Amino acid sequence: MNVHGNHGKNRGHESEVRWIISSVIDDLTLSSLNAVNSYLSSVIYVLFIWAECVLYVKKVLVFFASMEWYCYALLGIITALMSFFMDMTVAKLLNAHQWLYRCLKGHHLLQFLCWTLYPACLCALSTSFAHSICPFSAGSGVPEARAILLGMDMPDYLSLSNLFAKLFGLICTLASGSTVFLGKVGPFVHLSVMVGAFMSRLHVSSAKGEMLVVASAVGVASCFGAPVSGVLFSIEVMGTHYSVRNYCPCFFAAACGAITFRLLSVCSTDQETIQALFKTSFSSDLPYQPFEIFIFVLCLSFDWMPGDICCDLTQSCLLFEFIILSRKSLYSAIVAFLLACFTFYHSAGHFIASELTMKQLLTSLLDDTSWYSVSQNASALPEPQKTFWQAWNPPGKSYFQTLGFFITAKVGLLVVACTLPLPAGYFMPVFVYGAAVGRLVGEGSAYFLSDGISSAKSLINPGGYALAGAAAFSGAVTHTLSPALLALEMTGQCSHAVPALVATLVSNAVARAKHRPSFYDGISLIKKLPHLPSLIRYSTMMVLLNEMSLSQSDSLRLWLYHVFYFFPCLPDSPTLLGTINKSQLREHLHQHRNEVIEVIMC
Amino acid sequence: MNVHGNHGKNRGHESEVRWIISSVIDDLTLSSLNAVNSYLSSVIYVLFIWAECVLYVKKVLVFFASMEWYCYALLGIITALMSFFMDMTVAKLLNAHQWLYRCLKGHHLLQFLCWTLYPACLCALSTSFAHSICPFSAGSGVPEARAILLGMDMPDYLSLSNLFAKLFGLICTLASGSTVFLGKVGPFVHLSVMVGAFMSRLHVSSAKGEMLVVASAVGVASCFGAPVSGVLFSIEVMGTHYSVRNYCPCFFAAACGAITFRLLSVCSTDQETIQALFKTSFSSDLPYQPFEIFIFVLCLSFDWMPGDICCDLTQSCLLFEFIILSRKSLYSAIVAFLLACFTFYHSAGHFIASELTMKQLLTSLLDDTSWYSVSQNASALPEPQKTFWQAWNPPGKSYFQTLGFFITAKVGLLVVACTLPLPAGYFMPVFVYGAAVGRLVGEGSAYFLSDGISSAKSLINPGGYALAGAAAFSGAVTHTLSPALLALEMTGQCSHAVPALVATLVSNAVARAKHRPSFYDGISLIKKLPHLPSLIRYSTMMVLLNEMSLSQSDSLRLWLYHVFYFFPCLPDSPTLLGTINKSQLREHLHQHRNEVIEVIMC
Repeated sequence: MNVHGNHGKNRGHESEVRWIISSVIDDLTLSSLNAVNSYLSSVIYVLFIWAECVLYVKKVLVFFASMEWYCYALLGIITALMSFFMDMTVAKLLNAHQWLYRCLKGHHLLQFLCWTLYPACLCALSTSFAHSICPFSAGSGVPEARAILLGMDMPDYLSLSNLFAKLFGLICTLASGSTVFLGKVGPFVHLSVMVGAFMSRLHVSSAKGEMLVVASAVGVASCFGAPVSGVLFSIEVMGTHYSVRNYCPCFFAAACGAITFRLLSVCSTDQETIQALFKTSFSSDLPYQPFEIFIFVLCLSFDWMPGDICCDLTQSCLLFEFIILSRKSLYSAIVAFLLACFTFYHSAGHFIASELTMKQLLTSLLDDTSWYSVSQNASALPEPQKTFWQAWNPPGKSYFQTLGFFITAKVGLLVVACTLPLPAGYFMPVFVYGAAVGRLVGEGSAYFLSDGISSAKSLINPGGYALAGAAAFSGAVTHTLSPALLALEMTGQCSHAVPALVATLVSNAVARAKHRPSFYDGISLIKKLPHLPSLIRYSTMMVLLNEMSLSQSDSLRLWLYHVFYFFPCLPDSPTLLGTINKSQLREHLHQHRNEVIEVIMC
Repeated sequence: MNVHGNHGKNRGHESEVRWIISSVIDDLTLSSLNAVNSYLSSVIYVLFIWAECVLYVKKVLVFFASMEWYCYALLGIITALMSFFMDMTVAKLLNAHQWLYRCLKGHHLLQFLCWTLYPACLCALSTSFAHSICPFSAGSGVPEARAILLGMDMPDYLSLSNLFAKLFGLICTLASGSTVFLGKVGPFVHLSVMVGAFMSRLHVSSAKGEMLVVASAVGVASCFGAPVSGVLFSIEVMGTHYSVRNYCPCFFAAACGAITFRLLSVCSTDQETIQALFKTSFSSDLPYQPFEIFIFVLCLSFDWMPGDICCDLTQSCLLFEFIILSRKSLYSAIVAFLLACFTFYHSAGHFIASELTMKQLLTSLLDDTSWYSVSQNASALPEPQKTFWQAWNPPGKSYFQTLGFFITAKVGLLVVACTLPLPAGYFMPVFVYGAAVGRLVGEGSAYFLSDGISSAKSLINPGGYALAGAAAFSGAVTHTLSPALLALEMTGQCSHAVPALVATLVSNAVARAKHRPSFYDGISLIKKLPHLPSLIRYSTMMVLLNEMSLSQSDSLRLWLYHVFYFFPCLPDSPTLLGTINKSQLREHLHQHRNEVIEVIMC
């Protein structure tokens, strides 16, 4: 067939394609293949009808709401689908590992190999896949997403290859289970932002920034089925100003994502209705005595740690930048192997309940019956609780020792795990770690007040302490308050709202008082991502100003904008040096009156 | 005593006072009154120690956190105290009225007088007190607070006299009970903003705007004990941009307010621990079947009303502006009397459960047992439920008739009540009204599916429908999404999170699709308060542009700012005419190419 005829040469691409199709049809008509011809023409006819239908449906849809809203809904649904299928795949992979491990019972060496090589292989696979397809897919992704929202152009971080690398890598990381002890939230927010970027390319008239803010909310919402926490996350983490225009889309898309995610799990399991992800059954009549709030707050005396952990984490991330220059997969495999060696049941694993997955760890820590009362009558427990109880109470050890060792060991393991150059989130480990700290405090209180609290004869519920601890700890590390609400939305109970809120507020105050950057800010600073001036403290700024600017005081120009008490300091170059406090500036100007400074007050 | 001696004349005020004190002491020393002298000097000594202590305490406080944070905490605590004591006073006044009404049982005329004159007197008192002390204290106050946050200088609305007038007036209004059917939220947000303004005057270095945003969140939080909803309210209602700097203070102050408010009610009653304000006891195992979500959404087919009600309300507010020009107290008394006549038990009151207070109405509507199942066995009910049941099921009428009549009658009564020129909120009535609509749908479903839902044999919970209805209706009227969370925080249960969220989103979509201003926006427009361009719709704007500007096309200048897809249209005067959509503008410019238009693209 002479498809590329002379007629088609000087035409545009589209008309050429059309011409090709018509010439093909002509050729076919001329030929004797009548059957094929009629088949093809009917296919084309169906295609035309299909296009008509699509146009009609679009017209009908636009009648109800503008196309943007369908994009937001689609964003929520796609992200929820991704989240659900990721969870399902990970659960299947984890089950397979546990099944294999159980099958090899009695053969210690084979069990050891199964326990260590499985996560090592998965981590090596995750790293090599991530780095061979898109080297930008490693790490959390939240700092990068934040930089993109600030207006930085980073197309590599929003590419389709990054999406697939991150998706596949994250599945492998999560399938390594509690050995590697890494989470899903951060990369999932990044994944959601990537989907959002595609949606905004799809529907050109919608603003890209708006879609990305919405996507960040959707990420958290469809990760946990917690829409309002998603919206709060997008407000407090993703920028320094929030346009209320984005509020409704955020809420709508987050609700779509969260509801789809929960509905899918209703459809796939025998669950009868929409329930929370980590549903608890705390007593709602008397969840806690008012004086217990003081214990909740005291429990935060443990929170000198989060700042330090955060610092360690970010430093380890710095370390990892040097290590991953070569042989990333090998490094991943070795680190995962070493971690697995440590968490193997017959080495130190039975002290840290290593046979439980991340989900099981959190569920066991949030259980409402105190282990003190369980220890009196452990044989009567129903099935899942019994496994959890056995994991936390191995033969020869009490649960206090296990919890204590878990808390001590996991700091080191977490810092080592953070150096892994693969897509992984750091929120969930911190959340589980906080739950363990809270549980320890709760179990301690339950032990000392084992006869019930004097007047009310009510027993202490250590699950509530674990919930408050998780919210407080994750809030302190990330310098956010949304974990307080997230904890409630994840467990589907509001009964411990006040303790979770108080604990989160106090731990945030302690963490912020140290003037250390939050976890996200720390990574932004180390990775030299663009960030807003609030990240750099004023003290640093004054030093910068003194050292850099006043030595070249002729060229120094201060444009002073009376916004938010801070003044951005701009020397000749368009680089923003940082901000300066109003009172400090006044003092400074007072000291250096003779120097030429152009001051333009807006 | 020669206190004003020559030595004191040329000194500053402070040193003069000091000199006076010392001269007083000298004089006293010289005199023979040794006892008085030693007493006075010890008093002064104690005062000095006191001042030292205060300074020391301040130093210690500043060591832990900057003074701003104590201001925020104090703001929360003061507002919560106000809210609690207001609630207590109102409850006592309502009880007194109910007691008197019960005492007069058998004397219809006396009962009638008691029923009608009590609210009439209270409304007259509220109006006269409010208007004689500060005429700006009438109405909700949220639109004014919003205007102040936008930068408008309205000192009258933040004065101390306004605070007292509003506080006292609001107590009188609320004490009129469900006869007048007005709420507390709006004025309470205004009260909180006034307290915030005082706090910012007290602590000069804190920014006033910031304190007012925080105060608006505190207002909602300490009204219902719902901190997160307060923060969301301050984000979505109070402006078009939200500075994330305010987020932590908002959360902190709102948590302080909400916790203080709930702790006070623990201290004052025999309640054992902190509980939600309208605590429900929905089943958490199977709160609803997934398909019921469709009924929840269908229930919003009733939501063609909110827009209309909102319109009626705002128009009635307009009406009230004309009426209150003279004889405000008399008008209030007459309207309250007429409302009371209508809601008297022996006229129409027994059809609309008028003997229940607002709180009791909401509690009865949120009850989890369906009235259909109650009707089978009403005698076995415990005390509060029995009263509620009798109120909604008067002799000779079914609860469907009562609910239907309640919904029909309350629209009219609410519109009439809104014309009252006294401090009153309109959120709570709308919330209760929505709960009634939801309850009707729920009871209908419970009646038709009375055998339980096929597979699960679970009964329908009409309380959940009432909750979703309340959130949806109040969200639709105010064009906000925070009522969905507020409903959960008020009831202390997350089990109906998804229905409440879906219902609120759908009703908001329906309400916003009509392009009518929200309740707050409507009042802002009618009261000619300054507002942001988004309030005025583009369609109106195009008409305005066509009529007003193009007729004087020479003088027309368009400054186009590429912000948020809209272009503000400014003719010669500095008045902002409104905004114009980008595509519409392009079309317009295309049509009027020959006209002289200066276009400055920024």
